[in-house]
Amino acid sequence: MNQQTLHRLLEAVAQGRTSVDQAQQELVHLAVEDIQYAHIDHHRSLRKGFPEVIFGEGKTTEHIIGILDKMSSQEQVVLVTRVDAEKAHAITGRYQDASYDAEAKMVIYQKAPLEKRGRGTIGILSAGTSDIPVAMEAFLTADAMGNTVQTVFDVGVAGIHRLFAHKAFLESATVLIVVAGMEGALPSVVAGLVKCPVIAVPTSIGYGVSLGGLTALFGMLNSCSSNVAVVNIDNGFGAGYMASCINQT
Amino acid sequence: MNQQTLHRLLEAVAQGRTSVDQAQQELVHLAVEDIQYAHIDHHRSLRKGFPEVIFGEGKTTEHIIGILDKMSSQEQVVLVTRVDAEKAHAITGRYQDASYDAEAKMVIYQKAPLEKRGRGTIGILSAGTSDIPVAMEAFLTADAMGNTVQTVFDVGVAGIHRLFAHKAFLESATVLIVVAGMEGALPSVVAGLVKCPVIAVPTSIGYGVSLGGLTALFGMLNSCSSNVAVVNIDNGFGAGYMASCINQT
Amino acid sequence: MNQQTLHRLLEAVAQGRTSVDQAQQELVHLAVEDIQYAHIDHHRSLRKGFPEVIFGEGKTTEHIIGILDKMSSQEQVVLVTRVDAEKAHAITGRYQDASYDAEAKMVIYQKAPLEKRGRGTIGILSAGTSDIPVAMEAFLTADAMGNTVQTVFDVGVAGIHRLFAHKAFLESATVLIVVAGMEGALPSVVAGLVKCPVIAVPTSIGYGVSLGGLTALFGMLNSCSSNVAVVNIDNGFGAGYMASCINQT
Amino acid sequence: MNQQTLHRLLEAVAQGRTSVDQAQQELVHLAVEDIQYAHIDHHRSLRKGFPEVIFGEGKTTEHIIGILDKMSSQEQVVLVTRVDAEKAHAITGRYQDASYDAEAKMVIYQKAPLEKRGRGTIGILSAGTSDIPVAMEAFLTADAMGNTVQTVFDVGVAGIHRLFAHKAFLESATVLIVVAGMEGALPSVVAGLVKCPVIAVPTSIGYGVSLGGLTALFGMLNSCSSNVAVVNIDNGFGAGYMASCINQT
Amino acid sequence: MNQQTLHRLLEAVAQGRTSVDQAQQELVHLAVEDIQYAHIDHHRSLRKGFPEVIFGEGKTTEHIIGILDKMSSQEQVVLVTRVDAEKAHAITGRYQDASYDAEAKMVIYQKAPLEKRGRGTIGILSAGTSDIPVAMEAFLTADAMGNTVQTVFDVGVAGIHRLFAHKAFLESATVLIVVAGMEGALPSVVAGLVKCPVIAVPTSIGYGVSLGGLTALFGMLNSCSSNVAVVNIDNGFGAGYMASCINQT
Amino acid sequence: MNQQTLHRLLEAVAQGRTSVDQAQQELVHLAVEDIQYAHIDHHRSLRKGFPEVIFGEGKTTEHIIGILDKMSSQEQVVLVTRVDAEKAHAITGRYQDASYDAEAKMVIYQKAPLEKRGRGTIGILSAGTSDIPVAMEAFLTADAMGNTVQTVFDVGVAGIHRLFAHKAFLESATVLIVVAGMEGALPSVVAGLVKCPVIAVPTSIGYGVSLGGLTALFGMLNSCSSNVAVVNIDNGFGAGYMASCINQT
Amino acid sequence: MNQQTLHRLLEAVAQGRTSVDQAQQELVHLAVEDIQYAHIDHHRSLRKGFPEVIFGEGKTTEHIIGILDKMSSQEQVVLVTRVDAEKAHAITGRYQDASYDAEAKMVIYQKAPLEKRGRGTIGILSAGTSDIPVAMEAFLTADAMGNTVQTVFDVGVAGIHRLFAHKAFLESATVLIVVAGMEGALPSVVAGLVKCPVIAVPTSIGYGVSLGGLTALFGMLNSCSSNVAVVNIDNGFGAGYMASCINQT
Amino acid sequence: MNQQTLHRLLEAVAQGRTSVDQAQQELVHLAVEDIQYAHIDHHRSLRKGFPEVIFGEGKTTEHIIGILDKMSSQEQVVLVTRVDAEKAHAITGRYQDASYDAEAKMVIYQKAPLEKRGRGTIGILSAGTSDIPVAMEAFLTADAMGNTVQTVFDVGVAGIHRLFAHKAFLESATVLIVVAGMEGALPSVVAGLVKCPVIAVPTSIGYGVSLGGLTALFGMLNSCSSNVAVVNIDNGFGAGYMASCINQT
Repeated sequence: MNQQTLHRLLEAVAQGRTSVDQAQQELVHLAVEDIQYAHIDHHRSLRKGFPEVIFGEGKTTEHIIGILDKMSSQEQVVLVTRVDAEKAHAITGRYQDASYDAEAKMVIYQKAPLEKRGRGTIGILSAGTSDIPVAMEAFLTADAMGNTVQTVFDVGVAGIHRLFAHKAFLESATVLIVVAGMEGALPSVVAGLVKCPVIAVPTSIGYGVSLGGLTALFGMLNSCSSNVAVVNIDNGFGAGYMASCINQT
Repeated sequence: MNQQTLHRLLEAVAQGRTSVDQAQQELVHLAVEDIQYAHIDHHRSLRKGFPEVIFGEGKTTEHIIGILDKMSSQEQVVLVTRVDAEKAHAITGRYQDASYDAEAKMVIYQKAPLEKRGRGTIGILSAGTSDIPVAMEAFLTADAMGNTVQTVFDVGVAGIHRLFAHKAFLESATVLIVVAGMEGALPSVVAGLVKCPVIAVPTSIGYGVSLGGLTALFGMLNSCSSNVAVVNIDNGFGAGYMASCINQT
Repeated sequence: MNQQTLHRLLEAVAQGRTSVDQAQQELVHLAVEDIQYAHIDHHRSLRKGFPEVIFGEGKTTEHIIGILDKMSSQEQVVLVTRVDAEKAHAITGRYQDASYDAEAKMVIYQKAPLEKRGRGTIGILSAGTSDIPVAMEAFLTADAMGNTVQTVFDVGVAGIHRLFAHKAFLESATVLIVVAGMEGALPSVVAGLVKCPVIAVPTSIGYGVSLGGLTALFGMLNSCSSNVAVVNIDNGFGAGYMASCINQT
Repeated sequence: MNQQTLHRLLEAVAQGRTSVDQAQQELVHLAVEDIQYAHIDHHRSLRKGFPEVIFGEGKTTEHIIGILDKMSSQEQVVLVTRVDAEKAHAITGRYQDASYDAEAKMVIYQKAPLEKRGRGTIGILSAGTSDIPVAMEAFLTADAMGNTVQTVFDVGVAGIHRLFAHKAFLESATVLIVVAGMEGALPSVVAGLVKCPVIAVPTSIGYGVSLGGLTALFGMLNSCSSNVAVVNIDNGFGAGYMASCINQT
Repeated sequence: MNQQTLHRLLEAVAQGRTSVDQAQQELVHLAVEDIQYAHIDHHRSLRKGFPEVIFGEGKTTEHIIGILDKMSSQEQVVLVTRVDAEKAHAITGRYQDASYDAEAKMVIYQKAPLEKRGRGTIGILSAGTSDIPVAMEAFLTADAMGNTVQTVFDVGVAGIHRLFAHKAFLESATVLIVVAGMEGALPSVVAGLVKCPVIAVPTSIGYGVSLGGLTALFGMLNSCSSNVAVVNIDNGFGAGYMASCINQT
Repeated sequence: MNQQTLHRLLEAVAQGRTSVDQAQQELVHLAVEDIQYAHIDHHRSLRKGFPEVIFGEGKTTEHIIGILDKMSSQEQVVLVTRVDAEKAHAITGRYQDASYDAEAKMVIYQKAPLEKRGRGTIGILSAGTSDIPVAMEAFLTADAMGNTVQTVFDVGVAGIHRLFAHKAFLESATVLIVVAGMEGALPSVVAGLVKCPVIAVPTSIGYGVSLGGLTALFGMLNSCSSNVAVVNIDNGFGAGYMASCINQT
Repeated sequence: MNQQTLHRLLEAVAQGRTSVDQAQQELVHLAVEDIQYAHIDHHRSLRKGFPEVIFGEGKTTEHIIGILDKMSSQEQVVLVTRVDAEKAHAITGRYQDASYDAEAKMVIYQKAPLEKRGRGTIGILSAGTSDIPVAMEAFLTADAMGNTVQTVFDVGVAGIHRLFAHKAFLESATVLIVVAGMEGALPSVVAGLVKCPVIAVPTSIGYGVSLGGLTALFGMLNSCSSNVAVVNIDNGFGAGYMASCINQT
Repeated sequence: MNQQTLHRLLEAVAQGRTSVDQAQQELVHLAVEDIQYAHIDHHRSLRKGFPEVIFGEGKTTEHIIGILDKMSSQEQVVLVTRVDAEKAHAITGRYQDASYDAEAKMVIYQKAPLEKRGRGTIGILSAGTSDIPVAMEAFLTADAMGNTVQTVFDVGVAGIHRLFAHKAFLESATVLIVVAGMEGALPSVVAGLVKCPVIAVPTSIGYGVSLGGLTALFGMLNSCSSNVAVVNIDNGFGAGYMASCINQT
């Protein structure tokens, strides 16, 4: 679906050549493709500036490929998140434009990288080494959406001077993504040092009362710094997407 | 147990030919068959219009077959829910009238399909592709109980025009089943558009604070639309059964 | 907004006398009245067969009256739920067509009672005496919506023969509402006896691990009877509304 | 350790032949055997009428056998709970007086069955077929402790006439154990029918908001019948033990 | 309703003088009195050896008195639990046979104390001074039901020698009730010392992660001693009732 | 503390006139004022572009005024959140530059309004009338920080056409704040329609399983739309602050 | 009870002048005074170096004074925690050696201050101004137990340079108490800077998902610094007591 | 990094030979080594007296070895916690100074054991046999940090005389670590007997409402003894580390 087709249709309605009911149906069908197990939302690119992303968890390889077949015909870039190595192998075997990042568990299908756009740089920090997979999901998402992205890993609050060594980096970013598990304290400290918005990402790293990431999540929502908003546990993708929206609006 | 046997017994009591104690015992034993590990409730068909359904989870194959042996001699249709492929294979190997749906994990034993009855059509919607197995359990249940059923899948709220394309379908149903995971918002939106009752089914699809479906469940119970009632997480069977009761009362 | 106005507008569109954009705007404005603190949905009567209900909790008396002023000019019946005595006094003082039920904490504004409609009778049961206020909210709602409703109170499972004395009543209903706190076992037992749909309403009656009604709620969602669906804790209104939808569809 | 040894020691203290400190130490060492990874409490038989029971979960086969070696030299009966088939095989291979019940996952070591004692009969009910393993753990425990025990399975509240068929059984018991998962309603109904104490055992059978048995547990603790007390989820052993204490005190 | 009336009725049925339907109705109506807001279960005395107990919380003074009027005409003893001073005043003002215990918040109506019955003594312990109101509710209940009861207060585990000073008392009881808040450890320690059954009562005493008594409750359910069963938080009444059942069966 | 003072100090260090230790101490003391019960962070304006905000809850009037005294001497604008009417009266009585908004419970001290800055407009939506106080807190914060802000209230998903009437408004914003209680579905629907970042604010409006706002919070964190990040329950202030950071970076 | 009395008694036992049973009874009675509603543990001073502390919450003024009467006759210092102003007034009116701290809600009865003892200084930090009451409870406890104590308030992580200004203080302490609400991040940061043990005290300050202090508690238990142990929410008293034990062992 | 290098650098700054910025950078870089996936904190030994400990869970073998390579060149002792046998094999195969304890799942790399230091003995108790792995983690940690440590296992409260046999041991310790699962009552009882600080470690041993250790944790935090502080569930390492800090400060 593109702007031209759309314009032509609307003129037909205005001139009485097409009834309202027909137009509505046509618009919807152009925009949404029903393949039984999925309603593919081709209109999303138009509306939101980036196509639908395929959430791989709980979908069969057949369903993922079926959806990708339809989307790849119309889109420049398609992301598939949370795919294990086996499914990923089947996908990358079929599309030469697709590659797999095993750490972030993402397949990135792109005919060519998007041009860099956006007002500045997205910075991504992780509190620990174990938080890196989530941070990488954020990195790959923001990168694929056409942003300049930089990362600094393992700078948690137990040795806070490690963070201060990167102060210039912190201050230069347009938006920061801060990934942390366990007590999830890093976003509060970082946000206290900068004026840009901070997207906090809790991870499920920890044990006992880390409660699968709930403790880090709740800690971040209670941050005593105010320039913090939070996404779901382990949701690196969402953080990258949100940061991109902030950087590109 | 059928209406005739029942009537004869009650007359015998009225005429003093059978003592109250004897009658009570007889009635109970006709109606309930004790096979050690199960009390089979043959009376249920009579009382509720549909026989007991076998909940397969946590039962051995031997127990399932033992119960099915007894029920199949008296019933037209028997459903077994939540059976994995291995157990299902053993069952369908023994009964030629039984078939297995791997997506919904159900065995359907039926000598012949029930005649369609009920006042109208039951509509089933799913928010995402990953919610389809639960939606299919609802479909197969309602279908086996003799209802006309139609489905529309993957019309979640992130692209709400996909839903509006099916407005005629929504308005024609006697009762709607709406299946959704993650934030579980679809039933509220659907129920706001129609006047028929809506059965909401939360699924365990999601991660982090989806909390295994609790978030969707609680969201649905808090629906700001009033024509919504809710069943347990992933309980497609219960939704199909409840919708059938509504459609057939 | 009524059917006539609507028809005239749509003809104008069909005949090209009104542009699509104009029609859309007009429709929306006819249907939705924006009074700053509320968007009153006059279209709801048309769409759902019953007007918006005012949820009184957390609204000022001024806001409630402001909304009621607008709605009462267009509607036959308006319900206000969860209003304390003081607010209720202010409302009934202003509208002679409004009355207050202190037990159910509802204001019912009605120019004249709706004619009885629906396929049969709605039965309402409560497990205990303390559950009666919630049961009354269900009763008043279903009654105001034009249903025939009957009640039986205090028939909980600790003395189950109390329930059996009302077996004829149970079997004659088109739909049953069962209200219970504490362990919330009554809906399972009732649903096991009947073939009609059962709406279960957990109440916050109890202490300790009744957890403000969560235990009853979860028990009802786990009912081993299948013809049960559940509404939010203490949501007598929702149960009455849902039962009415079932009875009238 | 037996009553005789004990008596002799205490006389020595009374006659000044043994100092208090020595006596204390001796008593403790006679009673408690320290084998590094366990302090075996030989005194328990004396004090509580039944020896320590070995909780098998989380113990290595070596540890279980090491403890059993020490206990079997002094005790008539030893129970090992929650052992899988593999561990059980190693144990029964070593002791000819030990047998394994795979359903209840218990090893029962007994040189000879204890004589029946206690005031009456312990009755055990299960709500469903899937609750039987927990009920069997209760059965085997109470039986090994020298009680007369009877069982009735699969009489849950969805078909409550199945329960009423066993009214004589219910009324004849000294104490009842009622095992149920899902909504856990059976103990309330049973306790409403009898005057003896009822031990309720929640099971983890169910899904969604059964919450691994928490819902059944909370329901039972909120029972509107008063002659009910509750043990931990799936704790058939504890229920059998407690019922035995009641029956034998 | 008494045994004689019952017998006469049953004979009439046996001799055909009364139809089954009539007998059933009669029995139910004799046993259950419907006063609109309550179904009074007169049959309970017969069935359970003690009449229904009125749970005062959430009932109006009018309802409590209405129920008491009906019950007092047929029963020797009636208990009303969880009544505040104001309601209690209204009740004791009306019945000279009723007295109020402000600590336990109970009204005890008794024409004359029941004769002592039961096999032995019920012992009640509290861990702290603040747990006494719950312990007193247990005491008054067990006492009113005709048991010999003794109490020892404030013997928690932080100074465990306080408990040991009462060892003779512990060993002489037929059943022990142990009331504790905070970490709820006392029942485990006590149960480890005795062979009789122990009823554990968690209280809501504590703050922070005492979670309104949930921590004590869960601790008691996880007791490493096996002769322990548990009732709801602050449920002194239930503990006293259950202990009485154990002592009198 | 201003840029000039800072520059002079740093030159003194560079030229060896001031030792590192002295400089550090001076800097800290200039920036942080210790008044016993508070360490006032005067450096925050410099570092973050907006001074510290006083969280009024749990602070005495004396403490609030003490802190305000120090801050008002150095800052143009100071916000005090979550102050009740009584405390607010004391504050506005003392400072003529302070005003109180009773709905949002905020005191705004400003010598003169800040000039409008930022790239565009911040839009604020509320799902219901009862969510307005939280939305107003967001409005006042973003407004005081120098942003252009617009609001639309009561456009929840139960009547979704109310939202569509404001589509132009939605598409024109740089960033949207969406405030909702109950099931919290509005942010997902809104975010599905726009490409700008959406800040979701759950409110504690609702009852039963709204769980004081947790359900709305979790629903928002599970949003199937990706351009959503979330702040704490009822945290209108944080949402306004975060939106301002996004609009002004 | 003092060391002399104790020695004399033990000699009598050794010489056979006192039987074991008598000695045991005597010892217990000397050490424990039973005043019905409390078992006063006079032995605690001897055993633990500090007498029992009276937890005032949920005790009547009469009970507190009754216990204090007994204790003040034997002890130098007695603490009463969590007493409101009214109760405190009654207590300080009766004992001239008692004083009340309204912020910490503690009554301190001391004939004369204890001499300072312990190896060094206890440092107490609070994250915010609102955390001061809890910090003061810790201060008064540790002070009354004879420790040198110093405090620094309002140095939370949103402006972390405030903390660094007190580095010398941090490094000089033998043990640190760190009090924080909201996300509870301060103890992790502090513990990362020092080598001494850190006692973390979560407070209930915050709203929404601060969950009454649970979030701070869980964050502290998940601290990525290892020299941290935690006490209950708002338990300033326990932190002061534990720090004193560490400082004085 | 050692004290000499540090001193030389600081002199250079004092004498103006090195600018502040350069010094800062140098210090940070000396202290923190950035190897992409980790920022190794070499400064920690200097600051905290013991180097960083590698948390093995969720790290690849490659990452663990990479970090160990860097640390082993500078440190005498390095601990790796929570490593399974396979990873451990790879590590010990590479370093001859490393050994693996399979029960505690720890790798201990040490060139030579540290000399014993600290004021006294650390005592470690476990409530059950199944708690030993956690107790061993505490033992190995405290031992590797140069403390004298002693252990007593399986002395839980169900047979409390087992504990009393070790009274001398309890009283001789400088600090006690008490490890317990299920109801977690042991620390309260132990702390009531001694005056030294007690570190309580909850374990995940148990089932049902042990809730993976939460019940033991909450019980310990609610301890009615005051000389108790708590670490995370199963955190033997943290307990050993904290005890060492207490013993060595």
